[in-house]
Amino acid sequence: MGNKDCLFCKIINKEIKSSIVYEDKDILAFKDIHPQAPVHILIIPKQHIEKISDLDEQKKDIVSNLILIANNLARDNKIDKQGYRLVFNCGPDAGQLVFHIHLHLLGGRKMAWPPG
Amino acid sequence: MGNKDCLFCKIINKEIKSSIVYEDKDILAFKDIHPQAPVHILIIPKQHIEKISDLDEQKKDIVSNLILIANNLARDNKIDKQGYRLVFNCGPDAGQLVFHIHLHLLGGRKMAWPPG
Repeated sequence: MGNKDCLFCKIINKEIKSSIVYEDKDILAFKDIHPQAPVHILIIPKQHIEKISDLDEQKKDIVSNLILIANNLARDNKIDKQGYRLVFNCGPDAGQLVFHIHLHLLGGRKMAWPPG
Repeated sequence: MGNKDCLFCKIINKEIKSSIVYEDKDILAFKDIHPQAPVHILIIPKQHIEKISDLDEQKKDIVSNLILIANNLARDNKIDKQGYRLVFNCGPDAGQLVFHIHLHLLGGRKMAWPPG
């Protein structure tokens, strides 16, 4: 399953180890290996979709499900009251490094503005 | 319609002027008055929902529709190839200033990391 050259597909397939915090049949969430905040989790669909710009009406549930899981993880990590930032990077100007859709959940500290 | 004390509800109701770039029956998009990038647009649901953490299974389409519109606006603004960042702020630590869900679309420059 997935794209054999994709780092995140390898994480989904457990070919590469990660610090998994949530998994269901469609979604995986794991800690960012270069955390930028006390809580920094990546939430990804198991389906290999390169970029957020590739979503369409048929696939739009994927992104809302990522966000609902992020909300749950914020509660699990007790950052829901203080707050958290959700970030999707799309393409080179945004610094997207892995071309498999991923949602960043960041919290546990005061986030600055602008967002990068 | 909306919450009478909410800045964004007033913008939706055209009680406060904004630079609108997109509108349909459920969604409004307008330029951020304090832009942090050459393209900086806010995309909001017309329904008054305070925070992204208030979304549930019934309301989840709202957030995916915001993202599909953001993708369209990125294409309209010709930043889809170079890339763009999408940001939701939830609560005080994230710096959420207006308590009506809004998605930030930022692009037209190289975005830095961390995202704030």
